[in-house]
Amino acid sequence: MIRRDGALLTDLYQLTMLQAYHDRGMNGEAVFEFFVRALPAGRNFLLAAGLEQVVEYLEALAFTPEELEWLAGCGRFGRGFVEAAAGLRFTGEVDAMPEGTVFFADEPILRVRAPLMEAQLAETRIINLLQYQSLIASKAARCVLAAPGRLLVDFGLRRAHGAEAGLLAARASYLAGFGGTSAVAAGALWGIPLYGTMAHSFVQAHETETAAFEDFARSQPRNCVLLIDTYDTEAAAARVVALARRLREDGIAVAAVRIDSGDLAAHARKVRAILDAGGFPGIRVFASGNLDEYRLRELVAAGAPIEGFGVGTRMNTSADHPYLDCAYKLQEYRGQPRRKRSEGKATWPGAKQVYRAVEGAGFAGDVLACAGEVREGEPLLAPVMRAGRRISPLPMLEQARERAADQLARLPEALRLLDPALPYPVRVSEGLHALAAHVDERIARTRD
Amino acid sequence: MIRRDGALLTDLYQLTMLQAYHDRGMNGEAVFEFFVRALPAGRNFLLAAGLEQVVEYLEALAFTPEELEWLAGCGRFGRGFVEAAAGLRFTGEVDAMPEGTVFFADEPILRVRAPLMEAQLAETRIINLLQYQSLIASKAARCVLAAPGRLLVDFGLRRAHGAEAGLLAARASYLAGFGGTSAVAAGALWGIPLYGTMAHSFVQAHETETAAFEDFARSQPRNCVLLIDTYDTEAAAARVVALARRLREDGIAVAAVRIDSGDLAAHARKVRAILDAGGFPGIRVFASGNLDEYRLRELVAAGAPIEGFGVGTRMNTSADHPYLDCAYKLQEYRGQPRRKRSEGKATWPGAKQVYRAVEGAGFAGDVLACAGEVREGEPLLAPVMRAGRRISPLPMLEQARERAADQLARLPEALRLLDPALPYPVRVSEGLHALAAHVDERIARTRD
Repeated sequence: MIRRDGALLTDLYQLTMLQAYHDRGMNGEAVFEFFVRALPAGRNFLLAAGLEQVVEYLEALAFTPEELEWLAGCGRFGRGFVEAAAGLRFTGEVDAMPEGTVFFADEPILRVRAPLMEAQLAETRIINLLQYQSLIASKAARCVLAAPGRLLVDFGLRRAHGAEAGLLAARASYLAGFGGTSAVAAGALWGIPLYGTMAHSFVQAHETETAAFEDFARSQPRNCVLLIDTYDTEAAAARVVALARRLREDGIAVAAVRIDSGDLAAHARKVRAILDAGGFPGIRVFASGNLDEYRLRELVAAGAPIEGFGVGTRMNTSADHPYLDCAYKLQEYRGQPRRKRSEGKATWPGAKQVYRAVEGAGFAGDVLACAGEVREGEPLLAPVMRAGRRISPLPMLEQARERAADQLARLPEALRLLDPALPYPVRVSEGLHALAAHVDERIARTRD
Repeated sequence: MIRRDGALLTDLYQLTMLQAYHDRGMNGEAVFEFFVRALPAGRNFLLAAGLEQVVEYLEALAFTPEELEWLAGCGRFGRGFVEAAAGLRFTGEVDAMPEGTVFFADEPILRVRAPLMEAQLAETRIINLLQYQSLIASKAARCVLAAPGRLLVDFGLRRAHGAEAGLLAARASYLAGFGGTSAVAAGALWGIPLYGTMAHSFVQAHETETAAFEDFARSQPRNCVLLIDTYDTEAAAARVVALARRLREDGIAVAAVRIDSGDLAAHARKVRAILDAGGFPGIRVFASGNLDEYRLRELVAAGAPIEGFGVGTRMNTSADHPYLDCAYKLQEYRGQPRRKRSEGKATWPGAKQVYRAVEGAGFAGDVLACAGEVREGEPLLAPVMRAGRRISPLPMLEQARERAADQLARLPEALRLLDPALPYPVRVSEGLHALAAHVDERIARTRD
């Protein structure tokens, strides 16, 4: 079987480079690191996510018989290489920041130390997994910070970029502090709390709005959220009051109403007043429709009486910045530090560690240092895999979510706001500066 | 097995609505349509893609035993409903615009006619598949129009939003006129031509740049594209010339060099001059790095001597507009046209057809009409599935690609440019206007 998330989910050049390494017998120990070159404009921090999926990928890394057959038949690879590919597994080491860790530009969040061919083949999928979940966790964290105390639910599956994006966004946003998701498979796979209401089609399929509301309430008596904007929001709110009185006699409570269009704050106030006047202060107001952290901040600042928000497309496509300027770069080969010097894309050489200083409970600055340097502060990269296997169970998603909450609470206050702040201080150690100069000299001497 | 692209890849509300429909025995014939409410700002057209994946999904739609077990155990659904879910298959009809068809706002590109429960359950995945591929095909088509005659290759897998996004973007961009992709699994699955060069890590892992180039050339003599910007682009070009002379004696030709950073036009000119002066006018120049349709237009206008481009992240995240304002809406239930009237989101009721007028070879305007109306012009929605099965094989990807090229060629010239043009004329038929008025009257009469 040619899998859509297997060993062939890679760029062609990984395989042609592997063929060249195979031909030359080049398979020494390599160190690659994944990092973000620069934060998206206006963002003050990023949140690490996706490690669990990377570990699952590396532990399962192998070509299936059909994938090997494809390699052999595509006309690009020699028989000896295909035979070597059949035995390829990931046997290396991974050190990483735990999911839910706040990080900044140039800081590696994952380091792979492995035979060159293994570390190279895995590049594409490692980036693919880490960049997307970190991107979405970071965006979702901004939503959480913008709407403290409100329930946020991921509603974005339908406009996510494919199935995997929808599910991983549910995971990443929950990790970042969302209360749950509408994506059923994400609930079934990872135990993420599920939320749902009803669609406009449900109202439209009934002859009257009241009939639609009543059918839904009697079918979902413990989960009755009614969508009230299909025709006229306030008229529907009045219908909800009338219906809720009848349902109360049968012991059924309407939990909430949802508004999905128009001026959400204005509608929410009118609807709140209608529900309160009707004797239902306990029916909550839930809102959705084109929300992101900026709209959430506005609605909260306006004092809109909305208890929960469905946040979809703009969160799970990270619509204002739909990608991170990230890379997975060779930093060391056969014990020798390496460095790319391309214009605007130069990298810090060698295996690295990030040390974070803490003052009181808060974060006070990071130092990017060589992996061997001993520095003050908490080292953020910790051992995850050795000899191709995880050395202990990864934290559960709930633990990663707790870590994210703790990390966000410890960020300097200005960085927790949506507006651009002075960058968090990240210093490059003297040892790393010296190493970079040393590598530059060697490149100048030998690159011919 | 809980599949990540199966029947549980849906929003919770689809399932709670299904439970309510089941409780009430509501499963009459429903018509849903997928359409885009408004083109993204500055876009002049969209290109339909994703139908093949929708048909595959609908033909396979069923709950696995483990998924049924999850439904039964999650505490939200009754036993009778879970039993009904076990037998649920898609038995309905699909009419759609063929992949590669140009379309505009409010025009349905897919219409589902099926029992209400089937058509409702499928909503989330249908939107998920059609919106992403149409989004990317439309973005890629703009790249193709901006760089006529140049080879464009999708390089974006690593920063796509997950595995499926990477593969579907390879497919959608090829459909739109790209020459191929770097995503190996997309080549293996769909026969899309594969392209690849080498990474900076390959150069860095070698002691010298020349050694890296020579190893690669000898390993890939028929596919030798050398990446020359790891340290100093022009110095590397000079090394390529020296190496190419030696390789020529062994019958090996360097096919191309790739530039991935800095001022691409300036570097390309210098590199072209170095290669020409060295006696290698046949070595092509390939460029990559942060490209999109606007950068391509600039490079082409500047006369940069670049034969091919690797286009990645900005294309396959559609970075300037990473989603479409699209919907899948109930238009008819039990033979009666339906309409949503939410503020800013009202829909045209009833099953519809799109007729396209042609003048000479070019497209001259569309009419959005009721499905039963007879109009001038070519009807764009055609039968695809009946009784839950495709009625004939879908066009091959190559045919869809040819259709896209033909459609783009027939667009009015102003709409083929990147800058915003006067909108393509889409008129609503008198019949559809009359129907909408009729439905509004009925809603006003009965919605209580």
